[in-house]
Amino acid sequence: MSFEVNVRKVVPYVPGEQPNRPNMIKLNTNECPYPPAPAVKEALAKLESADMRLYPDPTADLLLQALSDVYHMPKNQIFVGVGSDDVLAMAFLTFFNSDKPILFPDVTYSFYDVWADLFRIPYKTCALDEKFKLCVEDYKQPNGGIVFPNPNAPTGVLESLKDVEEIVAANPDVVVIVDEAYVDFGGTSALSLVDKYENLLVVQTFSKSRALAGMRIGYAFGSTKLIGYLNDAKFSFNSYTMNRPSLMAGAACVRSVDYFEEITAKIIATREWTKAELAKLGFTFPDSYTNFIFATHKSVPAEEIYMALREQDIFVRYFKKPRIDNYLRITIGTDEQMQVLIEFLKKYLNNR
Amino acid sequence: MSFEVNVRKVVPYVPGEQPNRPNMIKLNTNECPYPPAPAVKEALAKLESADMRLYPDPTADLLLQALSDVYHMPKNQIFVGVGSDDVLAMAFLTFFNSDKPILFPDVTYSFYDVWADLFRIPYKTCALDEKFKLCVEDYKQPNGGIVFPNPNAPTGVLESLKDVEEIVAANPDVVVIVDEAYVDFGGTSALSLVDKYENLLVVQTFSKSRALAGMRIGYAFGSTKLIGYLNDAKFSFNSYTMNRPSLMAGAACVRSVDYFEEITAKIIATREWTKAELAKLGFTFPDSYTNFIFATHKSVPAEEIYMALREQDIFVRYFKKPRIDNYLRITIGTDEQMQVLIEFLKKYLNNR
Repeated sequence: MSFEVNVRKVVPYVPGEQPNRPNMIKLNTNECPYPPAPAVKEALAKLESADMRLYPDPTADLLLQALSDVYHMPKNQIFVGVGSDDVLAMAFLTFFNSDKPILFPDVTYSFYDVWADLFRIPYKTCALDEKFKLCVEDYKQPNGGIVFPNPNAPTGVLESLKDVEEIVAANPDVVVIVDEAYVDFGGTSALSLVDKYENLLVVQTFSKSRALAGMRIGYAFGSTKLIGYLNDAKFSFNSYTMNRPSLMAGAACVRSVDYFEEITAKIIATREWTKAELAKLGFTFPDSYTNFIFATHKSVPAEEIYMALREQDIFVRYFKKPRIDNYLRITIGTDEQMQVLIEFLKKYLNNR
Repeated sequence: MSFEVNVRKVVPYVPGEQPNRPNMIKLNTNECPYPPAPAVKEALAKLESADMRLYPDPTADLLLQALSDVYHMPKNQIFVGVGSDDVLAMAFLTFFNSDKPILFPDVTYSFYDVWADLFRIPYKTCALDEKFKLCVEDYKQPNGGIVFPNPNAPTGVLESLKDVEEIVAANPDVVVIVDEAYVDFGGTSALSLVDKYENLLVVQTFSKSRALAGMRIGYAFGSTKLIGYLNDAKFSFNSYTMNRPSLMAGAACVRSVDYFEEITAKIIATREWTKAELAKLGFTFPDSYTNFIFATHKSVPAEEIYMALREQDIFVRYFKKPRIDNYLRITIGTDEQMQVLIEFLKKYLNNR
């Protein structure tokens, strides 16, 4: 026998690559093309090196208070973590402990099955329809919990709040997690349902619309009961998850409401322009309510375009997976970046 | 039925309080009384707010390279996390999956049983002897893994490298974790045994001797096999644990070897002075090899002294637990802070 017998062996999630090429156009991990709010710069400038010898506030009160003020939710209904992945991992560990399978879409965030495997949670995927929409009825079968992104990734498809509520209402005996990483780009949050349904957890992130992917901040809204259980698990795992810079920068960031609205509006405008241009070039895509477009070309294989773009140091995301291996997930960058992308695609598709 | 049936219900670890009183003397969470190295200040000043829109490097290469250079270990034998608590939690999840109980001392870091409960790992505690020393023979019984701090907390007691090796060598079929949060204050690290024993994981932290508790950085050394499994689990939990400030500050910090040696030497000198003064006042304590002293008074109850100190805004740690409820854990502060403490104790014990 060896110590390896008792090792939890898992196949890890593979994050999008983080290339670092001069002048690259990085449209592969759905980052924000704009810098974080000016208040973040001020907060970072104010960091006192000497304070770093002291533990941060384990309750993360500075950040909770900012989220509470901006979202008009009491602090005991808010949870924060090291990115929404940390929040989701902790939620899986806390809430998904049934013998029945948890349910999520077949085409979705590719971390869900990884967390399920890590925590040995049985799961079952429900096929999206041919337009990549959820089938609400699928989520009325016996289950141990439900998780789905809205809008969905990598498809960009938005489900109506009515459909989300129908799923939450049909499952009072399990926790339903709505992963809203991309909701700020035109979606409607389920936050308004949190006080109506004690079993609903709404997860959001600072990594996309708030331009703070490098700071690792995610958060969740839920009933006091759900947030209480989540905090108990979190404080049984790591008391001090949020470091001092993330508390300071995060609070400054979330309070910068005008800037947030300005950059999300810009990204939405760029997205709509990109949609029109991609359509002219023979691409089709489900209508996107996110900061990316999930596009397939009428004649040229996605993998080929992906490789051709790479050679130009234009990075988009390609998933070699069933149903989606002929799609590219293209993050919305600045207007200039999208113009370069479109110009290259025009030439490439013409001269091929 | 309700969703609460499948909630993982746990009793969380309670971290030492983080009071914030003007002019307080904070000797309750074993922080470093000195600021981090000057290079940390420079690293923080160089943080570019605009870069924060991008994810950090998920491999944490900047930090791994610095640790690799300073400790002369290859990068694939080093793991980093959000404080050593994050590293330890991940190690429990990855390595402790046996039906047999894991073993740890009865008087030790109070997070071990919390992690065991969170992950539903059976455990058994082994009683320290009357001098708070480990009994090596206790760790030769059938088990699913072993974890102990060396030096131990909250006692400050150091076990010899020979005894540590005997435990590791006697348990080739399980992972043995040596938690060296306090090793830099006079202990001998088991790092030298890592290449000899594939089942040994040595965990250290930036929160004590490196004065970066506020940045949340912990790390571990082990065989390529152990570190590989640990990374697989970590990348199945959260790809991006270390944020940009922690990578930059952490790398600068670990490379500041001279400063590190200077402040640890100062803390050791202050500790030795404090030991002599406490002894004069009628305290006894196991000889400490850490940045704290675990002291009991010959006649005055620890809880009473703890409360009296609190009233002066002098915070030490008191654990109301079997075997140790008549002890105070006193962090070593600056010379000035320890003088204030000793002066107060002198007066208090005389006038009582």
